[in-house]
Parts: sequence; C-alpha cells; structure tokens
Amino acid sequence: MNDRIPAGTLRKVDRGDALAARYGEIRAATEALAAPLSAEDCAIQSMPDASPVKWHLAHTSWFFETFVLAPNHASYTPYNPAFRVLFNSYYNAVGDKHPRPQRGLLSRPTLEDVQNYRKHVDRALADLLAGARLAPAQLDLIELGLNHEQQHQELILTDVKHMLSYNPLRPAYAAARRASDIASTMTWVEFEERLTEIGHEPPGFAFDNEMPRHREWVPAFAMATRPVSNAEYLAFMEDEGYRRPELWLSEGWDWVTVNGIAAPAYWERNGADWSYFTLGGMLAVESHAPVCHVSLYEAEAYARWAGARLPTESEWEVAGREMPIAGNFADDGLLRPRAAPEAGMSPRQMFGDVWEWTRSAYAPYPGFHPATGAVGEYNGKFMCNQYVLRGGSCATPRSHIRASYRNFFPAPARWQFTGFRLARDR
Amino acid sequence: MNDRIPAGTLRKVDRGDALAARYGEIRAATEALAAPLSAEDCAIQSMPDASPVKWHLAHTSWFFETFVLAPNHASYTPYNPAFRVLFNSYYNAVGDKHPRPQRGLLSRPTLEDVQNYRKHVDRALADLLAGARLAPAQLDLIELGLNHEQQHQELILTDVKHMLSYNPLRPAYAAARRASDIASTMTWVEFEERLTEIGHEPPGFAFDNEMPRHREWVPAFAMATRPVSNAEYLAFMEDEGYRRPELWLSEGWDWVTVNGIAAPAYWERNGADWSYFTLGGMLAVESHAPVCHVSLYEAEAYARWAGARLPTESEWEVAGREMPIAGNFADDGLLRPRAAPEAGMSPRQMFGDVWEWTRSAYAPYPGFHPATGAVGEYNGKFMCNQYVLRGGSCATPRSHIRASYRNFFPAPARWQFTGFRLARDR
Amino acid sequence: MNDRIPAGTLRKVDRGDALAARYGEIRAATEALAAPLSAEDCAIQSMPDASPVKWHLAHTSWFFETFVLAPNHASYTPYNPAFRVLFNSYYNAVGDKHPRPQRGLLSRPTLEDVQNYRKHVDRALADLLAGARLAPAQLDLIELGLNHEQQHQELILTDVKHMLSYNPLRPAYAAARRASDIASTMTWVEFEERLTEIGHEPPGFAFDNEMPRHREWVPAFAMATRPVSNAEYLAFMEDEGYRRPELWLSEGWDWVTVNGIAAPAYWERNGADWSYFTLGGMLAVESHAPVCHVSLYEAEAYARWAGARLPTESEWEVAGREMPIAGNFADDGLLRPRAAPEAGMSPRQMFGDVWEWTRSAYAPYPGFHPATGAVGEYNGKFMCNQYVLRGGSCATPRSHIRASYRNFFPAPARWQFTGFRLARDR
Amino acid sequence: MNDRIPAGTLRKVDRGDALAARYGEIRAATEALAAPLSAEDCAIQSMPDASPVKWHLAHTSWFFETFVLAPNHASYTPYNPAFRVLFNSYYNAVGDKHPRPQRGLLSRPTLEDVQNYRKHVDRALADLLAGARLAPAQLDLIELGLNHEQQHQELILTDVKHMLSYNPLRPAYAAARRASDIASTMTWVEFEERLTEIGHEPPGFAFDNEMPRHREWVPAFAMATRPVSNAEYLAFMEDEGYRRPELWLSEGWDWVTVNGIAAPAYWERNGADWSYFTLGGMLAVESHAPVCHVSLYEAEAYARWAGARLPTESEWEVAGREMPIAGNFADDGLLRPRAAPEAGMSPRQMFGDVWEWTRSAYAPYPGFHPATGAVGEYNGKFMCNQYVLRGGSCATPRSHIRASYRNFFPAPARWQFTGFRLARDR
Repeated sequence: MNDRIPAGTLRKVDRGDALAARYGEIRAATEALAAPLSAEDCAIQSMPDASPVKWHLAHTSWFFETFVLAPNHASYTPYNPAFRVLFNSYYNAVGDKHPRPQRGLLSRPTLEDVQNYRKHVDRALADLLAGARLAPAQLDLIELGLNHEQQHQELILTDVKHMLSYNPLRPAYAAARRASDIASTMTWVEFEERLTEIGHEPPGFAFDNEMPRHREWVPAFAMATRPVSNAEYLAFMEDEGYRRPELWLSEGWDWVTVNGIAAPAYWERNGADWSYFTLGGMLAVESHAPVCHVSLYEAEAYARWAGARLPTESEWEVAGREMPIAGNFADDGLLRPRAAPEAGMSPRQMFGDVWEWTRSAYAPYPGFHPATGAVGEYNGKFMCNQYVLRGGSCATPRSHIRASYRNFFPAPARWQFTGFRLARDR
Repeated sequence: MNDRIPAGTLRKVDRGDALAARYGEIRAATEALAAPLSAEDCAIQSMPDASPVKWHLAHTSWFFETFVLAPNHASYTPYNPAFRVLFNSYYNAVGDKHPRPQRGLLSRPTLEDVQNYRKHVDRALADLLAGARLAPAQLDLIELGLNHEQQHQELILTDVKHMLSYNPLRPAYAAARRASDIASTMTWVEFEERLTEIGHEPPGFAFDNEMPRHREWVPAFAMATRPVSNAEYLAFMEDEGYRRPELWLSEGWDWVTVNGIAAPAYWERNGADWSYFTLGGMLAVESHAPVCHVSLYEAEAYARWAGARLPTESEWEVAGREMPIAGNFADDGLLRPRAAPEAGMSPRQMFGDVWEWTRSAYAPYPGFHPATGAVGEYNGKFMCNQYVLRGGSCATPRSHIRASYRNFFPAPARWQFTGFRLARDR
Repeated sequence: MNDRIPAGTLRKVDRGDALAARYGEIRAATEALAAPLSAEDCAIQSMPDASPVKWHLAHTSWFFETFVLAPNHASYTPYNPAFRVLFNSYYNAVGDKHPRPQRGLLSRPTLEDVQNYRKHVDRALADLLAGARLAPAQLDLIELGLNHEQQHQELILTDVKHMLSYNPLRPAYAAARRASDIASTMTWVEFEERLTEIGHEPPGFAFDNEMPRHREWVPAFAMATRPVSNAEYLAFMEDEGYRRPELWLSEGWDWVTVNGIAAPAYWERNGADWSYFTLGGMLAVESHAPVCHVSLYEAEAYARWAGARLPTESEWEVAGREMPIAGNFADDGLLRPRAAPEAGMSPRQMFGDVWEWTRSAYAPYPGFHPATGAVGEYNGKFMCNQYVLRGGSCATPRSHIRASYRNFFPAPARWQFTGFRLARDR
Repeated sequence: MNDRIPAGTLRKVDRGDALAARYGEIRAATEALAAPLSAEDCAIQSMPDASPVKWHLAHTSWFFETFVLAPNHASYTPYNPAFRVLFNSYYNAVGDKHPRPQRGLLSRPTLEDVQNYRKHVDRALADLLAGARLAPAQLDLIELGLNHEQQHQELILTDVKHMLSYNPLRPAYAAARRASDIASTMTWVEFEERLTEIGHEPPGFAFDNEMPRHREWVPAFAMATRPVSNAEYLAFMEDEGYRRPELWLSEGWDWVTVNGIAAPAYWERNGADWSYFTLGGMLAVESHAPVCHVSLYEAEAYARWAGARLPTESEWEVAGREMPIAGNFADDGLLRPRAAPEAGMSPRQMFGDVWEWTRSAYAPYPGFHPATGAVGEYNGKFMCNQYVLRGGSCATPRSHIRASYRNFFPAPARWQFTGFRLARDR
C-alpha cells in the first residue's frame, strides 16, 4: 500500500482521469454479472464460505465508502449508516461486523436498495475524482478498491455457481456455450537452477502480498506445459485413486474418508458417464479441459500417483512470467475451463482456465509489512494454513491477473475454479 | 381421517359447496399474509426449523396436488413434476424429499412461479369440486388440506418473524398497532375430580390426534384465569430465576447454561428497560400482555418458582371447553399477545394470544390409530419427545382452533408464540 | 422422602439393626461386583453417559457421607474434603460437581484409595447406627442410600459391559455360563377397563417418583405373556424393519439414518449368523432370550410392524402387580437375558431379564412433590424427554425391584439391559 | 531412509554392537519415565491428540516388531497377533488401525501385559542383533526405531502432564525441583545474507524430512539471544494482547474468541498472581523462564506486538548450527523450562527448554522423497497445515536433538512444550 508510483512519472490529473474511466468500466462489469439474476438469486447464501450476490454488490461499495469517501470527501453522507457494520467483511479496525454465516439472512436491504447504494457511491466518487487533486496514497486506495471489486466479480460467479448447484431444478446462470474439446499433449519444460528475483516489480498495481520483490534460490525443475485434464484425472479415479491412502496427505485422507469424496466437486456419475454442473447447467465432462474444482489434497494425491509433484509458487512464477497473459478469462464469457486451442497456443498455457494449486503455504515474503491502517488487514492476517494458487481462472477478469499474483485458499476448498499443473525435480 | 360425517346429516352438494367457499377464503388468506413481503423476504430460511414463506406457499399447494388432485382428478397435469420432491415436507410414503435445512437454498422456482403454481392448483381444485360428486373420504382430504393450510398460515408468521429478527435493520412485517396494557388480576378457578371424556366429539373437523374421544380420570385441580404476564415473568427474572438450578428441570438447566439464556426469545435489554422484537418491529415490553416465546423449560421453572405447576392437557381441556372461542387471533391483525381487555372479558381467557405449554408429553390417545395412507404420517409419527400446547395464539386463524386441539413442539422450541398458564393441586 | 413407616409398626431399634445388616450386605455386594476387575478396568469411562467403576464405588460412599454422616454424625471427619466435589453426580444443592464427561480422566484417587474411602464411610456409618437412636427421617436417608447403591450396582455392570465392548480383544467380565434356549409361546392376557389405584402402596420403601398412589382410569387392554424374543426380532430385521420409514417414529427414523443402525446394540453379523457381546464375551445370539439393548425407537418400530403397541406404564403395573417378583436377576449371576424356563414359569414373566420400555413419558404422578433438600433432586428434575421402563433386568438386584418401580431413560439409550413387551387395545 | 552410512566408514559388527548398547539405554529410559506412574495413570487418554502412557509403551515396541523383527527375524513369533492392529499409530500400509480417539478405552492389555510385551520384543531384538550380520538398511530401521522411541519419551511426558492437569487433586508426576529465576537481557545477533546449505549433513542419523541438504538464499536477519520469557509475555497480556484483533492472524483471532483464550495453557490466575501446572504440580509462574505451552497464534501475536516477527526455520538453522547442543533437556530431570543460567551460558541459548515455533510451514525440502515401504509414512504425509518447531525442549532427550531437526505441530497445539524466539529483518 505504499505509494508505488514514483514521483513524476505520471501527472496527477492523468492518473485520476485514468482511474475514473477504469472505475466506470469495472463497476459496470460487476453489474453486468448480476444482471441475469433475480432478487431471490441475489439474496441466498449457500454456505458460510460463500456470500449472497447482493452482499458482494454492497460490500464492494462499502469498500469505497469506508476507505476512500469517508476519509477524503468532506461532504460525503453515508447512504445508510447501518451499512458500515452490515457490509464490513473482516476489517476489525473498522469496528463491528455482521456475522459472515448470517449474510444470507438479510432480505433487507433489497436488491433494488443495494443498487441505489451503488449509484450513491458512484456519484460521490465521480465527484471526488472531479474535484481537488488527490494525493497518490488516495489514488492508490481507489486503485486497490477496483482490484478488490474485480476479486468480488470472480466470487460472484463462484458463489452463484455453488448456490445454483444445490437446486434440484438445475438452473443455469447463462446458456452454455459450446467449446472445442481437442487433446493436446502435455510435455515438460526444463528450467535451470538460479538465484532470481521473485515478486512484483513496480511500476503498476500489485497487492501488498506480492511484495517486496526479493531474491530466492530456485533449484532446477521441470514444469508441465498445461494443467492436468479431466481425462487424465479420470485415469487416476479409475485406478482407485480415491481409495489408496498411500497417495494422500494424512489430512487429505481424513478429508476423503469423512466426507466420502470420490470425484471433483460438481461432478455426477450417470452409469458409466460423468457430467458436471456448470454456470450453463449440467454438461457431459469435457475430456481435455483442465480438471477443476479440486482441493489441494486431490492435486497432491494425483501428483503422487503420476510420479510428479506440484510446483512451488516460485517455480510457477519463474515459468509464468515468461509467458503472455493470454487464455480463457471471465471476459470471454465461457465461464468454464476449456481444452487448449489446437493451434496458435502459447508454448505454455499458464493463465486463465483454472487457478493452479502450488505446494507453497501462503506466507509473507522476506521483508513484508502490511499496509498501515485498516487496509493492512487485506492480506497479511490470512497468512496461515492457506496455500498459494497462481494464474487466474475462467472467472477472473483478464486485466486483473499478472505473473506475480498470489491467490490463496485453505487446502480443502473446492468451490473456486481450482485445478493444478505438475512439476518435477530435474 | 375416517369419514366422520354421519351419513345423511349433510347432502353431498352442500358440503362440497361449503368446502369450495371455504377453500377460496383460506387460500386467499394465505396470500394476504405473503402480500407485504418481497420476493427476497419469501426466499430466506433462517434456521432448519423454519421454512421460507415461498416454501409454505408451495407446500400447501403440493398437499392438495398430491393427496387430492393426483388420485382423484383424472385429467390433472402436475404444474411441474419436480415439485413432488421439492415441496414434500416429511411424507416418506410419497417418496424422496428435498432436505429440510436446504429449503432456503432454492432461489428457483421464483415467488412468481410459485404463485402461478398456486393458481394452477386452485383452478384444478375448483374444477374437481364443480364436477362429479366426491366421496366423503375425498371431501375429508380437502378439509384436511384446508386445516393444514391454516397451520402453515401461522408458520408463515412465526418464520418471517424469526428471519426478520436476525436483520440488524430491524424491519417490521407490518406497522405495529397500539394495544392497551392494563393489569388484570389472576385468580384461580377450582375444578372437582371427575371421570370425564377427553378428545374431539364429532361432528366437525378434528385432526386424528384429537381422537378417539375416551374416558380419563382427572383429579381435582385449580386453574389460573389467564396466562402469566410479562410483568410477572420479569419478577421471576429479577429474583434470579435464570440462575437458580433448583428451579429447573435438569435438561432445562443444561439448556440455559449451554445457550446462555437469560430472557424470553426476542427480548433485548437496554439498560434497565426491556424491549422485544415483534412483527411490528421493536417495542417496549408490554407489562400485562402474556409472556411469549418461552420454552417448556422456562414455563416449568417459572411454575416451580411460583409454587404452582403447569396444567396437564386434560385439565386444560376440562377448563377450556366450557369457554367460548374468543380472544386475540391472527384475524385481529395485532400479531402479538395483548393484555386481557379490561371489561367484558370471559371469566377465563383460554384461547388466542399464546399457545399454552402443558406438562403433558405428546402421546397417542387410548385407541389411537393413524389414518391409512400417506396422510397417516400427519401426526402419529411425531409422538415422541414433544409436549402438548393448547388454545391457539395471536397468529392462529380463529376458525382453526377448538378446545380439543393439540399442538405440539419440543421442549426447547421458542420461535412459536408460546406462553403458559399456571395450575395447582387442590 | 417422607417418613413412610407408620409410627409404632416397628420399634426404632429394630429398624436400625435391620438397616445395619442390610447395609453390610449391599455394600459387600457392590464390592463383589468390582472384584473381578483390575484398577485399569475400574478407571476408564467409555462415554459421557457411563461412569468408571471407581467412580461408582466412590459416589455411592459420597452419598452416605453427604446426606447421612455429615449432617448427623457430630464427630465425622470427611475422608478427603475434595471428594465432596469430585464424586457429586448431579446435586446442584450440594455445590460444584466434577464434569460428568471427565470422570474418566481421574487416575487419582487410585482404586485402592477409593476402597479405603469406602471402609472409612462404612466404619462411620456402623458407628452412627450403633449410637443414639436415629430419627425416622435419618433412617429413611440410609434406606434411600442403600437403594441408591443398588442402582449403581446395575450401572457398574452396564458401564463395564459398554467399556469392554470397545476392546477388540473381546475381554469377558466373567466366564459365560450356559443357559437353556427353548421357545415358549407368546400369548395374550386380557384385562378389563377399570378405575384403579396406581403407584406405591406403603409400607415399604419406594422412591418419591412412585408416589403418591392415585386413581387412574385404565381402558381395557391385552398384554403379552413375555417380552419379544431375539428370534422374533430377527424376523422384523429380515423383513427390512430397519429400512422401512413407515414403521418408525419420525425421530427414530432420523436416529436410524444418522447412526446407521441395523441391529440391537452389541450385535455383530458374521455372514448369515449373528452374535452378541455379553459380560461373558461374544456368544451366538440365543433365539428365545428376550431381545435386549434396543432403544425405545426400535421397540416402537417393532410393535408397529407386529400390529401391536407398547403398553403404558399403568397397564404394565396393572398386569405386573398380580405376579410374584421372580425371574432372572443380577443375583443369579447369568448377567444376560435368558429364554423363559420351560416349565413352572409364571403365567406372565414380568420381572427380571430386561427392563421393558413403555410408551409412557416419565412424568410426575398427580400430587407429586419432590422431597425437600438436596435429595429432592433425586428424581423429579429428570421428568422431561425420558420414557418409563418397568420390571428390572438381569443386572438388577432382586431385592431392589417392585411392581411400582419406575426406571427411566431417553428414547435412544441402548447400553442398559432394555427390551420390551407388546400390548394391544381390546 | 536410504542407507546413509557410506560403505566402509564403519564395520558392521561395530555398528550392530553400538546399536545394541544404545537400544538397551533408550528402552530403559522409556521405562524409567513410566516408573512413577500407576497402572491407572498409564491407562487414561485425556484427549484425541494425546495417548495413554501404556499405548506409548506398546506402540514403540510394535514399531520394532513390525518393521524390524517381522521382516528380518525368521523365527520371531508375535507376542499377540492382535497387537498389530491395536498398536498401529497411522501406518496405512501396515493395515487396519485401532481408532486414535479410542486408545483410552483399552483397559486390556494390562500395563503388566504391555511390560511383558516389551521384554518379549527386547529379547527378540537382542537375539537378532547377536545373530547374523544385518544389512545397513536393517540397522537403519533399528536406529529409526530408537529415534522414534525417543520421540515417544517426550510424548509420554506431555501426555501425562495433560492428563494430570484435568485432575482437581492436582497430582504431581514427580516432586518439583527448585530452579533459579534470574533475568538475562535479550539482545540481537545479526546475520548477513547468504546462499547457504540447509538440512542434515551426513554422516549420523537424521529423519528423512531433514534431507536432502540443499541450497537456500537466506536474506540478512537478526535473531534474539534467547526465547521470550514469562515476564515479557505477561507484559503483552497486561497490554490487552488477547483482546486486540489487530495483533492476531485471522485464524488466531477466531481461535482466541471461540475458545476464550486469555493465557498460555496450564496457567491459572489467583487474584493478581499467576501460577501454572507443571509435572511437579502447581507452581508460581517463574518470571524469567521461557514462556511455554503457547500456540503459533500466540507466538505470532506477541511478535507483532513486540514489533518483531518469528524466524523462518532456515534462519533458525543458520543461527542454531553454530551453537553447541547444550541446555535443559529431559535428562536434566527438571521437566519444565528454566531461566537461562546466570553465567557461562552460551551467547545464544538455542537448544532445550522449549520447542520454538517458526513461521515456516512444514513442507518437503527440494528433492525430498519419502522412504519406500511403510516407514515412508513417517513424515512426508504430514506436510500440510503444520508449522516447524526447532531446538528441542525440557522433555526432549539430549541425544535426540540436532540443529537440523524439524519438529512440527498444527498452529493451535499447546500441550507440547512450545515457546518461541523473536527475529527481525535487517
């Protein structure tokens, strides 16, 4: 959260204007995601880890209201003072929070009221940006708010998918589009050992957890050219992968046993065939699309079965930062992973489709210090018992991702678009 | 569920016509209860014991569809075959059920779709009643369906109250009406010992659990003229009632301790004052209204503190059947218990305001046999670890109640309008 | 706990002497039950509902120390003041209690120490009885203590059985004795309707929950001559009894489903055969012995399957009080239910073998008042969500049982020697 | 588990003899730890994470029986074939396991029987070692078994402490010895950045998780000369450390809130004073002894409060490997952490007293491969959601520890002797 824009590289007025334009685009993109949904669709919370769409719409506005408007806009009047508590996610420094598992108990404010709240915040923010010159730290907070909103765009999709999946009527969020399903060979790319720099390199936005850029020793390794596919994962399943404790982390085996896990989330068996629930409804499993909605435990077990391992996050960054940020993102509208395109694909498909589990526990980089103030709670306090994922997914906005981006979830989480790629020692 | 209408007492055409009229009234009353609510209000389930309003609207229609239309209406087409599972509450004989705790995960069908479902069933039922003469057993099922729907009218109110109470915005279901709050003296009415008949006396509708009418020996007892009031209950609280284990059933004391109970449900302390959440929002506790939203445990503890006891259900029936069915019901629109009217009140206020806990476990009457078929699951299978409540509440339709009516809930339940009246040995 | 010995029927000196003799016998019987067990056997608690044998040995002494010696013996010195808390079971009026689920965490005091505690109490009680004339209320408390100790004798056997059953080495408490296993026909005995007296008739000891004797109207009924046998219960199992929801109470069906219940407790299938764990180790299921270790839910389901019902506790008492207290008790040393003897059996085998579930919820008799003081917590506070069992079991001391005796357990309890007998309406 | 003894460095006969002597010493040390305990003390399990002492005595023998005797000793007869399942801890490859939370339900085998089992294994192992020359891999397994037994020596102490702490009689495992409690200043030692080798350097025994030795880049850092003391930790507590969410990891704050944590485990407040339960009973908290029985969450919160951080495990190893393995170990018999000795202490006290939490998640070293066969389950499968601790404790045998040793526990674990040391960036 430090001022990462070196003095003089950009005149204030330019950055403010650019942010104003970007603000409009990103806020509109959020509303476009909610557009196909009814008020009822937006009100329901299907598990404590997920939130109602309405809550996402409000909380992203709360972020701008709390961190940008309240401290910087002298004449700003909160839309509703009660929202300060109601739509606080986890910022203890801001005060009380509505309990997370009870977000789905709020029929009021209505969806319409939340939409008015968004407009109220939008007007005030436009006003602020049009006014006096803002300090770089203030502009940084706006930029943080936009990146925060993009994160919630992805959560809107994952949470709606989870909620709809419980409905025996099998409703679709949007009509399913076809995707080609052609096999591509997985090969290995080799990397020499090196002392290298890891982490975000300014300028440009990054979250505090991607910094500071620092040196690491990365031993020689090989990385697969693409994520593991559904067909490959099915071979693991058919080889009794879910019944062989020797393939699993101890905690993973307990998880399989207690929860009766036998396939990725959203998969259903129909006799000999498998189908999966998607944002377009039930579809036959596409053989060559990356396997998705697997836990870290499943990724680890598959890798052991395949005689390989998961990459570390540093290995992933070394391999990924050489590649263009191209792939299947939320902007493409398919909203499910797809097989690699036949031709013209990059030598390594590192971005989009599925977030890729790494074997790296989510931890502070050497020299890491969280931002001061409440936004310091953004990332640092979660650095325990979570694992890093890299690369973005089919539900991530393309402009949101970069090679140094560190996503993180607990090992058993499966409702995100999570897959994995193999690595091995050399 | 036997044909309780002696042959010849009523010509078929009369009963069918009467039922058709009553059907229209009761169905309309249900919809009137939902009218102040938005689609979001109707979609949310606040705990496994409660159901979304939308589910109540659909399930009551499912009852007519499953038990009346499907077997008796030759050309009936189900509105949506998936609803057979989706809106089955607990009838194992009908087949699969959607899991009760997941009723709140269903954003689809929409409220509008459910309203269309209701109209579809209404048209088919009107059609059926207008057609060929129905057998008495068929008419009985329609009558059962109407009484069933009235039960769900009360549940709509209790479940909405529970859901709104979790909302920190404190929304009201309807504007709160004022009620007078004047003290009335509680006195004791004495009853001699007797061998008497207990249970429903035909003709007229009753649930199977109110039958057969049978003899019981009821020892001499005295019964309070009205339920215990908030002011009286506050005296118990101020006398450390919630902290004295000697007043409590063992299970009740565990319940108090584990859940940190210190007041009736929906009560909140503001310094020295108490207020409670009502369907009209937060109100100051009304001193002379019957205490409400207490568990059986609390009722038992209060009674022991007061040197009295709860009545048995037979005692209640002996005392209640002499009185007119008059009082504060859902039809009155106050939707909260109120102090007894100053003058002109009956010598004993036995009906309306609050369901009254008795010390009687819910058990079959001697000679009880559940109805054959799926409707046999209506009552009998719940005769375990529940307690009988009598008299109806401020959320009960007046035409639904009678002296022999047996409501039943588990001892810790508090979200219904539950209060109690004292009795004692003579 | 009132003085139930009418003045003059017994001189004080006689009753004190008689109690002293009985005290010696009952205390010795308790120690005989523990004799086959090691210190380790006596220390372990296998579930919160069960207690270590060592705890039973101490708690029964605590009862005499707390209720008899401390108030009445001027020079009594407690063995260890810490035991007042440590071995209090549930008497809130006595003060703090060691948490029930942690009774098995106490390696100290050692078994030897507890045995010394018993001797200390025994000496003091002998001293007290040999001294000045005790008031009838004091003698009553000693008599209560002896009946209390007999209850714990049964619990020692049921709790040891439960603990040993978890041990894969299948240890026996004592060598299994053979028992004949001959079928006896079950027939029905008919009883006319009547207004009758129910409850204990003085003189003689009874617990407060058996009083006051009071009138009840008991409709005509028929009662089976013996409990349901293992062979009969197996027919229910083979008829898919555990898979047919229509046979079960709603709560029972949930219990079956959640816990995966498919047979009585302690039963194990070996291919086509069934065996059960007993205090004599694993045995083949004896066909004609009463089925045992079933919950109220199973008893209710079987009865519905058999086209009958469970008796009420009043019906049981009417049928049982005509019969001699004869049967298979703890004194006989078999320690498991056995088939009715071929010849010379009473027309109705009502006592011993298995406690018989009734359909009666455990509730106060009309006019019931618990004793004053801490012993008033003995029974009354448990009158909620438990069901009455009658008749005693193969683990009950013969001198402890009578027709009016009311045992009580929650519906799902199975570790006691619980079976059932059928009844039906006439 | 590879043969880490280079051929020719040691003749077989020497290593076998040395192992035989060491076997005798270590097995005797285990029995000496159990000597002060009664059979009852050894039978009880106080929580699922802990095991009864009897189980530790048996399981360590099972390890030799299963991995050394059964495969290598032609004429070995198992002491009791049922023990193969009963005393298997977590080796899925060995077959079934007795459920961990039920280890405390086993009154049989008796302690005496387990002691005979130990002798049986000891005789067979002596026989094996005295016989034909064993292959290096076989000797490695014996050495592994001895290190395994030393780990369980520490667990015997931690598990007995936990069990005794639940006993309100406050029993001591052994009489408490006095220890001096003199303050020593904490200073910082600075380390330059470096590319260094981390992990075990052969020859000599190490667990597979300490290998392979590999290169790492370690940035410059400073390390405290000693662990945080009780006095320092009390200052954190007095500064409301347990009530300030900004100091805590998100997961840690939940843990504090849900469990009502307000002090290290075993601490009790008596007015203004604090005491703690030790293996010598209750003692006043010693101000300058290292704080102990804290979770990773508490260590992290303290470090943030102190403006520092926890070291990584590599930093700890860099700092620790320069120091002699000297300190307060199990062999010293104090069995609680003690203040650093006044004079003659090493410049950095890195070993003994308390295991030191690091901020490093327990993960495989680059190139790690678990051993083949069942012993491959020893370490690798636990590399998820655990954190590394370094340095050994007052309950660790001195000969068991080394600078590269990696202990690991989940973040909330507190029943081990766990403390921490501060580090900071330079």
